[in-house]
Amino acid sequence: MNDLLKGMPTPAELRQMSRSEQKSVVKMVRQFLLETVSQTGGHLSSCLGAVELTVALHAVFNTPEDRLIWDVGHQAYPHKILTGRGPLFPRLRIKDGLSGFLKRDESPYDSFGAGHSSTSISAALGMAVAAKLGHKSREVVAIIGDGAMTAGLAYEALNNGGVLDANLLVILNDNEMSISPNVGAVSQYLTRILSGRFYNTVREGAGQALSFVPPLRELAKKAEEGVKGLVTPGTLFEEMGFHYFGPIDGHDLDALIQTLENLKKIRGPRLLHIITKKGKGYAPAEQDPCGYHGVTPFNRMDGKMAKKPASAVSYTQVFGDWLCDKGAAEKQLVAITPAMREGSGLVRFEQLFPDRYFDVGIAEQHAVTFAAGLACDGIHPVVAIYSTFLQRAYDQLLHDVAIQNLPVLFAVDRAGLVGADGATHQGAFDMAYARCIPNLVIMAPKDEQEMRDMLNTGFAYQGPALVRYPRGNGRGLTLNKDLSRQVPIGKAEVLREGKELAILAFGTRAAAAMVAGAALDATVVNMRFVKPLDTELLTSLAQSHRAFLTVEEGARMGGAGSAVAEFLLNEGVVCPLRLLGLPDIFIEQGDAGQWLADLGLDAAGIEKSGGELLALLARSPSGA
Amino acid sequence: MNDLLKGMPTPAELRQMSRSEQKSVVKMVRQFLLETVSQTGGHLSSCLGAVELTVALHAVFNTPEDRLIWDVGHQAYPHKILTGRGPLFPRLRIKDGLSGFLKRDESPYDSFGAGHSSTSISAALGMAVAAKLGHKSREVVAIIGDGAMTAGLAYEALNNGGVLDANLLVILNDNEMSISPNVGAVSQYLTRILSGRFYNTVREGAGQALSFVPPLRELAKKAEEGVKGLVTPGTLFEEMGFHYFGPIDGHDLDALIQTLENLKKIRGPRLLHIITKKGKGYAPAEQDPCGYHGVTPFNRMDGKMAKKPASAVSYTQVFGDWLCDKGAAEKQLVAITPAMREGSGLVRFEQLFPDRYFDVGIAEQHAVTFAAGLACDGIHPVVAIYSTFLQRAYDQLLHDVAIQNLPVLFAVDRAGLVGADGATHQGAFDMAYARCIPNLVIMAPKDEQEMRDMLNTGFAYQGPALVRYPRGNGRGLTLNKDLSRQVPIGKAEVLREGKELAILAFGTRAAAAMVAGAALDATVVNMRFVKPLDTELLTSLAQSHRAFLTVEEGARMGGAGSAVAEFLLNEGVVCPLRLLGLPDIFIEQGDAGQWLADLGLDAAGIEKSGGELLALLARSPSGA
Repeated sequence: MNDLLKGMPTPAELRQMSRSEQKSVVKMVRQFLLETVSQTGGHLSSCLGAVELTVALHAVFNTPEDRLIWDVGHQAYPHKILTGRGPLFPRLRIKDGLSGFLKRDESPYDSFGAGHSSTSISAALGMAVAAKLGHKSREVVAIIGDGAMTAGLAYEALNNGGVLDANLLVILNDNEMSISPNVGAVSQYLTRILSGRFYNTVREGAGQALSFVPPLRELAKKAEEGVKGLVTPGTLFEEMGFHYFGPIDGHDLDALIQTLENLKKIRGPRLLHIITKKGKGYAPAEQDPCGYHGVTPFNRMDGKMAKKPASAVSYTQVFGDWLCDKGAAEKQLVAITPAMREGSGLVRFEQLFPDRYFDVGIAEQHAVTFAAGLACDGIHPVVAIYSTFLQRAYDQLLHDVAIQNLPVLFAVDRAGLVGADGATHQGAFDMAYARCIPNLVIMAPKDEQEMRDMLNTGFAYQGPALVRYPRGNGRGLTLNKDLSRQVPIGKAEVLREGKELAILAFGTRAAAAMVAGAALDATVVNMRFVKPLDTELLTSLAQSHRAFLTVEEGARMGGAGSAVAEFLLNEGVVCPLRLLGLPDIFIEQGDAGQWLADLGLDAAGIEKSGGELLALLARSPSGA
Repeated sequence: MNDLLKGMPTPAELRQMSRSEQKSVVKMVRQFLLETVSQTGGHLSSCLGAVELTVALHAVFNTPEDRLIWDVGHQAYPHKILTGRGPLFPRLRIKDGLSGFLKRDESPYDSFGAGHSSTSISAALGMAVAAKLGHKSREVVAIIGDGAMTAGLAYEALNNGGVLDANLLVILNDNEMSISPNVGAVSQYLTRILSGRFYNTVREGAGQALSFVPPLRELAKKAEEGVKGLVTPGTLFEEMGFHYFGPIDGHDLDALIQTLENLKKIRGPRLLHIITKKGKGYAPAEQDPCGYHGVTPFNRMDGKMAKKPASAVSYTQVFGDWLCDKGAAEKQLVAITPAMREGSGLVRFEQLFPDRYFDVGIAEQHAVTFAAGLACDGIHPVVAIYSTFLQRAYDQLLHDVAIQNLPVLFAVDRAGLVGADGATHQGAFDMAYARCIPNLVIMAPKDEQEMRDMLNTGFAYQGPALVRYPRGNGRGLTLNKDLSRQVPIGKAEVLREGKELAILAFGTRAAAAMVAGAALDATVVNMRFVKPLDTELLTSLAQSHRAFLTVEEGARMGGAGSAVAEFLLNEGVVCPLRLLGLPDIFIEQGDAGQWLADLGLDAAGIEKSGGELLALLARSPSGA
């Protein structure tokens, strides 16, 4: 075991420690964090910024009886280290290892699972109300970043929390960053608070202003009078019904602990605004918090990360390049991201076309309805979004875009298995949830060349279109970047002519299907379109083949294979048909290739299933 | 044609009129509204409150070149009357008639379609940015109610709009109501504005404070100093980056027009707060704005609505009664509604158990994640929500409830066709979008007795469960209200034993399936569970039958029938199977029974499809 862990206290022990011992725990946690994450990779910057806060929270609150609800989970490694999970860090974010996010199954200290952003206040409010109904006196604390505050869900929860008589403490951990620099009016508002005189006054007497119990509010009022004309800190939250406290320095353990102790003595909805530095305590991360948000293993001495092999290019990169090329050619193209500039490959587009680049914050709903508005008036928006996050804009996709049949192109990244991020982030459901939506064209390219061509196709189409593509690298093809290349809508591609069995592959599973098809002498089709299906080809194949096997990297329930089954059955086609896809479980973290093999979706698995179908045919009389 | 319509101006004519003529238009519109809606039914209260505003907007702005984006559409009838659609009002909300909401197809004056709440600011921001990118000087105006402001989408849009340099005017039409009385901290905040001295000051000099162009902001600052210690109007919106103006009387046409004229001269994000009275100008509606929100035809003289026949009870009512019964027996039951107290049948529960009733505002996302938080700590929440609105909490259902396998019961009302509300409100998609979600139990009762039993089942289940039931009345059964009655999870019910053909009915289509089954001598099964399917029964039926027909009132693409197809095919069952359900279009308004007949989902349609399958079998050799 790492030597640092030998000295690591339990939360109960931490609460018995002297302040100076607690401060040494801060150092140990930060050092352990750096040592392990530099070896395993993971979310670093946010965690470095939350070490003092984590120690203070466990020192003050009676965890796990008191509830800590961490938002997202990007900042939760210190919490994991302090709650007995240090020894598991060598297996961070790998299969059957430690989750990179919060998980109720993993520890009683994880009061609420997370992964997606901005859920913490809602969940904490639920727990606070549950405590009230059950006459429990426990404390409930939500810890949320300023980035996560841009989401409507956080606002809905504040709006509700401000009027319920529940005992809820929200800690706004303000590091002026989302994953990328934070955007939006509320972010600017928080920055104004920090630049105002009030903050300086508080800083000078750090902690003093909060070193007593009510009537705090009266004092705050007086303080406000003294800064009339400047921004009044917290008014926004006060108007939402929360008592606002802060801002205080989130790296000052004394101030944090004293403030939290005082806040424990107050009831009702409270918000404590703390200021932290993303990457705190590690110079390379402080200087480039965005670059060290999620890291691959790196050299702790100089901060250098292992370079990725330069041979193949990621689908994200292919999208980003296409967007720049297309944007140069088409002035009505705009790009919209819900706070995923880096992850979605938009860095260069922003540099080239700042006027046509919109980071709307962590606000997927708005991203989509904003796109709908643009599309009404002659603009063709491209919404760059992960499969898992499009779930957060489902009604906007359906109600605002599809019903009105508006030309919006959805570039859906991380569609399929995502690897280390695990169950909360799998791009498993997009084909199933999107294909019931009328008017929507859904495409899944077999490789990066076809992806480019499909993006051209979707952009030319005067209605809603979606291109889904996986995390990771393409096949390393030399790309034909002609922007006029398109794929005929609703037309599949026969990759291989075979007999008896037709393997219908959706998306990048086509490559594995080709290997299996060759082994089985089966026909292999790159289906290309989840919707509209190539019904003409399917009808024709049904006449020349005796069995079908569909393959997709997405939920089998209601997925693309299910669409094939619906069509063939309603056409009266009666023949064996088997669907391969992700099973009806939430798939945990782990290498995507390993998972695909385990689930029978690699070449060997497809061949096995195809072989079983052929064996079935051999036992039954020939119908063709 | 109604005489009132003869004098109705076009928007262009309205703009040429004198103020006194415009005031007479206000009277005409209000009178026409009352005359027609009293005969057709529809959304009345909100429309009555928006007459002056509508006239003022069309008088000041160059519609349709300037864009008006009405939120929801409940208040948009005056806009329809003024834009040439008065003659269509006798066919309001009926098939092929006038939509009750906004529709881009219906009129160039409908800049953005709506139906669901809180989309207007996002869409308008998109249009304002499009105007900027296209160098158009047009005005873009979003009109949103205070109820709709409780939704996160509105906040996300404000947060983004406050920092984009776009020319956007938001009109906050504040009538202190959602459909039910409005809730939440922002609502209280708005009420504080109205009760403050500042408002009175503005009232006394109505319009004066806005009778000039910038530096308005400086003046506003000075005014604020005069009310130090009181609530400062609009601070919340100012902090979001919007210039706040108001509040002004939304029934004072002079003040409205003058203010809007002045606001046209200012650029950037602006918010005008107007105060209106829901039901304005019609005494019964003013006194009971909630009762007259959506009306059936009524007597204009005394306001009395035609009584509904007392014989059958609606599914909504059965749910509401069950909730009260169960709530009395189970102290850990709480009920949550996103602002649909009346529509979801929660009035009596609120009266009986005010501490366990939570109207969270128009905030579907929060409703679900709040429920997840409650469920973590020993409470069993029942989320009462319409099928179409659950679309707005899709990720919360998946990420916050299902991944954590938390005990939350979803009572999904208006599942299936909804009639007059049309495409935006059809409960068409819930089975398709929900069944790909692992851990979720999905039930569809055949009648109101089974609905009660399924609610008991879902509440007893220690994981997420969903019961979907339609709009409208049950079969008039005398109910066994025993709260221990349950349906075994995953077990279907054979309603009728027949031969060759098995009709598998989901939900209330079972009754029509029985009629068809008798005519065809087919087996009829009440499937009960969309998930988990009764695979044992399906396997057994596959041995004894030669064809299957599934029937559901939901999208066929990816729906319940599709689940049956997937299972049978993966089991190697090879026989004719046909799926009946809603086709892959957005289904417009119209009587649900008529639509079901047109779509082949009534008894005759099911019989016809079943007959075709049997004819197919007759032509092919017997396989059994």
